[in-house]
Amino acid sequence: MNNLIRIFLLATWMTGGFCPAQSQSQLIEDFMPSLVNQPGKLFSQVNSEGRVRASIVAPQANKVQLDIGGVKYDMVKDVNGVWTGESAPQDAGFHYYQLNIDGASVPDPGTKYFYGAGRWGSGIEIPAIDHDFYALKDVPHGLLSENIYFSKITNSWRRCFVYTPATYEKDAKTRYPVLYLQHGSFEDETGWPTQGKANLILDNLIASQKAVPMIIVMDNGYAYKPLDVANSDKNARPVSVFEEVMIHEIIPMIDTKFRTIADREHRAIAGLSMGANQTMRIIMNHLDKFAYYGGFSGTSNYPGTTEIDPATFLEGKFNDGSAINKQLKVLWLGLGTKEPNPFPGSVGAFRNMLEKQGVKYVYSESKDTAHEWLTWRRALNEFASRLFK
Amino acid sequence: MNNLIRIFLLATWMTGGFCPAQSQSQLIEDFMPSLVNQPGKLFSQVNSEGRVRASIVAPQANKVQLDIGGVKYDMVKDVNGVWTGESAPQDAGFHYYQLNIDGASVPDPGTKYFYGAGRWGSGIEIPAIDHDFYALKDVPHGLLSENIYFSKITNSWRRCFVYTPATYEKDAKTRYPVLYLQHGSFEDETGWPTQGKANLILDNLIASQKAVPMIIVMDNGYAYKPLDVANSDKNARPVSVFEEVMIHEIIPMIDTKFRTIADREHRAIAGLSMGANQTMRIIMNHLDKFAYYGGFSGTSNYPGTTEIDPATFLEGKFNDGSAINKQLKVLWLGLGTKEPNPFPGSVGAFRNMLEKQGVKYVYSESKDTAHEWLTWRRALNEFASRLFK
Repeated sequence: MNNLIRIFLLATWMTGGFCPAQSQSQLIEDFMPSLVNQPGKLFSQVNSEGRVRASIVAPQANKVQLDIGGVKYDMVKDVNGVWTGESAPQDAGFHYYQLNIDGASVPDPGTKYFYGAGRWGSGIEIPAIDHDFYALKDVPHGLLSENIYFSKITNSWRRCFVYTPATYEKDAKTRYPVLYLQHGSFEDETGWPTQGKANLILDNLIASQKAVPMIIVMDNGYAYKPLDVANSDKNARPVSVFEEVMIHEIIPMIDTKFRTIADREHRAIAGLSMGANQTMRIIMNHLDKFAYYGGFSGTSNYPGTTEIDPATFLEGKFNDGSAINKQLKVLWLGLGTKEPNPFPGSVGAFRNMLEKQGVKYVYSESKDTAHEWLTWRRALNEFASRLFK
Repeated sequence: MNNLIRIFLLATWMTGGFCPAQSQSQLIEDFMPSLVNQPGKLFSQVNSEGRVRASIVAPQANKVQLDIGGVKYDMVKDVNGVWTGESAPQDAGFHYYQLNIDGASVPDPGTKYFYGAGRWGSGIEIPAIDHDFYALKDVPHGLLSENIYFSKITNSWRRCFVYTPATYEKDAKTRYPVLYLQHGSFEDETGWPTQGKANLILDNLIASQKAVPMIIVMDNGYAYKPLDVANSDKNARPVSVFEEVMIHEIIPMIDTKFRTIADREHRAIAGLSMGANQTMRIIMNHLDKFAYYGGFSGTSNYPGTTEIDPATFLEGKFNDGSAINKQLKVLWLGLGTKEPNPFPGSVGAFRNMLEKQGVKYVYSESKDTAHEWLTWRRALNEFASRLFK
């Protein structure tokens, strides 16, 4: 189906709104192919309740299940050997899922594949009421570039994706501010440019003049020094050197290769979950390098939910609230209203500490979303609109 | 495993050379994880004979098969419910494959995924003796950019990948020649930048001064006008408008957005299989636009293998051999020595016609490869080194 027709039909179908959950026997039969299916593939599908329907030919199988949101739903075989089954209603937004065929966990051959939960696998998109802000629209589109580089610190080839706004190619003199934007745990540098839709969100924000044109750099938050085999303790957890890579390799490379404005006033850093934790440490250790921070569903006290002592937390970096207020132009925190523990407690404890210290910050909640990508798309949309102004 | 270590081990292992095929009972037990596995995944694996070993946990399955190269190999279950099996030796290079679990054809959850054979699915890389030319090496790397655009001709959003050489970002004045490079049937615009390794091939060629720095544009060869539902004959095959899209949309867009040298002397066009057929038609219809042609495993007489009449073939475009020789700076044709019919016959008939007409051309064979990506990587490597000189 033509994507534009599909989006139009989805929009029409969504005006009916999402109905409350019903039992499987009362499914609303308005399923449509998922927006992230492979070209020409009819399954998986989504209905107006947000249920997912999967279907696969497996004539000799004994048991086939749809595995989504931590729940496995039994599928049923028809006379042609085609198994079909539906999930309970899912939250709006993007979810990772898989099929289970006689005990084998495999990607659904109908979908495109995404890196998350530590593997390349299936994803599904449940249309959100506010999907317009990340939709592919008739606005000028920036470029999304794969940039390969060798990291001496880790002795490995690494990769980042770099978004340059539509105007970047138009004149060769203009220089741009930069947002460094990080994924969460068990994800990688493909998260933001693929399921995160960072490029489309910025294309739309810039076209409507809600954000200033900026470069976005999306790198991989996993970075370790080469294993010292002779001296290593097999039980030791490797120590992340992502902060070193960011400060000594990524930023200098980006400032050399792209037309950036290379000062702290024109540099922001943000991340989701693990990335929020990492980037908070990075900015607090390098306030000479960045003036904007965004923490999406995460803070550096994670997984702690108890009161934070600013004298010891991050080596006292939050001791002097008024100094931070002078240096940080925006300190932005976001959370989904359906996020599980310890996220609300952890972010809550961090906010309490900020308030105690008199640190100014912005806090925003994503309605009806959990620790998933719609929370973070919304966070980026809000955060990016506050940058470099 | 660290990729550099893995490549080093593979190189060591390859110096033993590939042994002749042996029966499954005499497998050489030097299997190593495939270079295109997902991070941390041990399967699939490849041994020095080029056999593929797949393995998957499927305790309740009745039958599991490895499906590669048009052959299904039975896998065997151990006491832990883990199925393992090996293929016969495969040609060096990249192959698409899948697993079959109780009749369900699914991607192997251990590999990265590639678009080909009309689906996103598993791939495997059998190391080639000449793998160095497409290896990720310590040379300056260009950028690979995803460029989204709206096509009025097809009324759809389309995408191309654009390779810009490492020097492109260094000074804002230099302009570059452009190679338009097309995939084959049931593939898409991701083929050349992913399994085709076009960016790495050019990075290496440019670094060793075997090719001049150039831009490469890799678009999607499938392009159709919106379906006229009211007037359409359901049995009619849609007519490709890729040539129109290339001439009226892609080239003007690239010449506007990138620093190209926008004349025929600095524009090349090439493709593999279906893409060779398409691009040959495009260049012969638009000799004012291109001066270089590469046909990899394909020509426009495909699937014909009989003698070509130049008076009627492509509306007589090859009638005047000496005029073509003045206009085409390079006409390059390539074929793998193991390609099946009708490719050798079809390319052979085309070559005979060229010779009869006195058209100068270069012909090159890829040793021991079939209608697959190692043939085309080698073709690009040779063809690109002849361009714009």
